[in-house]
Amino acid sequence: MFDLPPVSHELDDAIRRAIDSKTKPLGALGMVETLAAQIARIQGTLSPRLERCRLTLFAGDHGIASEGVSAFPPAVTRQMVENFLAGGAAANVFARTNGADLRVVDAGVAGDRMDTPGLVSRRIADGTRNCAVEPAMTAAQCDAALGAGDALGGDDAPDAAAFGEMGIANTSAAALIAHKLTGIGLDVLVGRGTGLDDDGLAHKQAVLARAAARTAARLDAHAALREYGGFEIVMMAGAMIGAARAGAIVLVDGFIASSAALAAIGLAPALRDYLVFAHRSAEQGHRMVLEALDARPLLEFDMRLGEGTGALLAWPVLKCAAAMLCEMASFEGAGVSGPSA
Amino acid sequence: MFDLPPVSHELDDAIRRAIDSKTKPLGALGMVETLAAQIARIQGTLSPRLERCRLTLFAGDHGIASEGVSAFPPAVTRQMVENFLAGGAAANVFARTNGADLRVVDAGVAGDRMDTPGLVSRRIADGTRNCAVEPAMTAAQCDAALGAGDALGGDDAPDAAAFGEMGIANTSAAALIAHKLTGIGLDVLVGRGTGLDDDGLAHKQAVLARAAARTAARLDAHAALREYGGFEIVMMAGAMIGAARAGAIVLVDGFIASSAALAAIGLAPALRDYLVFAHRSAEQGHRMVLEALDARPLLEFDMRLGEGTGALLAWPVLKCAAAMLCEMASFEGAGVSGPSA
Repeated sequence: MFDLPPVSHELDDAIRRAIDSKTKPLGALGMVETLAAQIARIQGTLSPRLERCRLTLFAGDHGIASEGVSAFPPAVTRQMVENFLAGGAAANVFARTNGADLRVVDAGVAGDRMDTPGLVSRRIADGTRNCAVEPAMTAAQCDAALGAGDALGGDDAPDAAAFGEMGIANTSAAALIAHKLTGIGLDVLVGRGTGLDDDGLAHKQAVLARAAARTAARLDAHAALREYGGFEIVMMAGAMIGAARAGAIVLVDGFIASSAALAAIGLAPALRDYLVFAHRSAEQGHRMVLEALDARPLLEFDMRLGEGTGALLAWPVLKCAAAMLCEMASFEGAGVSGPSA
Repeated sequence: MFDLPPVSHELDDAIRRAIDSKTKPLGALGMVETLAAQIARIQGTLSPRLERCRLTLFAGDHGIASEGVSAFPPAVTRQMVENFLAGGAAANVFARTNGADLRVVDAGVAGDRMDTPGLVSRRIADGTRNCAVEPAMTAAQCDAALGAGDALGGDDAPDAAAFGEMGIANTSAAALIAHKLTGIGLDVLVGRGTGLDDDGLAHKQAVLARAAARTAARLDAHAALREYGGFEIVMMAGAMIGAARAGAIVLVDGFIASSAALAAIGLAPALRDYLVFAHRSAEQGHRMVLEALDARPLLEFDMRLGEGTGALLAWPVLKCAAAMLCEMASFEGAGVSGPSA
């Protein structure tokens, strides 16, 4: 199911030479050069094309929200889906401003099936079960979510596939998944989410400790996803793999998307080379998850909103990196002298 | 000459309320919120308009280049001006990709007057004198460069005025100016520029120590500029003030632009509130100069190219910040619940 060809390193030397021939001191564009090389490698060309970015925004509800682990009521997931479809959320604004498409997927929002025009419905159930007391979903539901995500990721794949999420209580799910996959302590991984105070944070930590104690200390990717995952997280993990298989650059947003990426790499290890990490979130666990992924993200704006907002802010940097490789003149072509002997 | 009205803080409370009413957890957009507030404050409106960015790229040559302080020969300044006008440099590529205009100004390139079509000629002289042994320019030349910059900054001012530079040896000039204005040690401020090796760096440090010893330990802004400034740095300082007076957001690039900003603030202290710092350069002195300016830059990509490349990469972030304030729905407007009581 999750076959994914590895990114070839055959062109690495040629890419390096192409970048080093550009009219700039050696290495002077820093991370933009690293990014350009990765994009060229994924596309298998010295002239990468990076015109279309699509953010797929997965929404789902979490049974564990009933434990009071979020500052916001669960109804907000559904309300924000309406807001996305009406064009009023931060993700809409950033997508419009930076020229990205936006697609909203109901992966499992609580309540009745939504029929708002424009919504892509792939709902697995009306929210997960409470993972503090039982598995969030069945193995069959997990497979269905992964499969739906894989298909969505590969469908009309853009040059850059960005992924975002909306789901009240999903920092809890993301922390538990990352904990079971990496062994990083819950004390480090559990943060304030959308804005818990000290008491709220202590309560969240206690609930998540209880949820974690329910299963073995470490789990494989599929088990971590079905025990703790939200449907939006599982579907995103599948979509990252599907998008990479279709040749897209996969643009990872913040804490929750990075937990999905951890799990997706567990299912398809070759995925790692397709991932660009957009930003370091202010959610405290994100720093450790990024370290576990050996990832240096592009941006650090102290954001903690999700929705793919970090990925959308990073999209122009990817475009510039690819354009640098395609459009910049070489020393020879421009008649510019190199360093003094 | 450098009268500049301070940015009014009258709207601060209203701006804060507008941002906090948006459909996102309080503060969840981090630095993007801070940036949006600054843009709104400068424009004096809750609906800031940020459509046009123009990079003005000042080029000039430096007498101190004859001391061998750069890895590249001085002829590269002129060659790169031709490259800018032909559209092949990194600044051109990033400007095209991110929808910014680009204007190239000859502030004082060595050799004959250039007549390449498209070049804006404001040349003060064919390069500065060698500031290791004498003042880089006369007081009259410094005034002329400041005045030309002020006029250029205010001419048809864009919403965001970005400034870049090209000038072989201008990290030396920038380090000396920052040293004389802040008292930060030259050992910290002097870096590898376009790529000096260890021997080259030691030589540069020795030359700059000699240049610094020629004048008093601390200088005022005008004196620092005329003793050590390149014409491109002085003209940029004037242009920052002119652009701010015309109501533009002033987008500061890397190490050299930050030294120009330090000097410009010395001439017009109200300028500080108009400045947005685009990125932290890999040139080692930049971190300290940013601290002296109490500035947290938006990006950190280990870049050290100049040309305004960092400013151009930051431009979409500014657009997104302004659009957030103008276009995002409020909790009330979108029917989204706030935090649980």
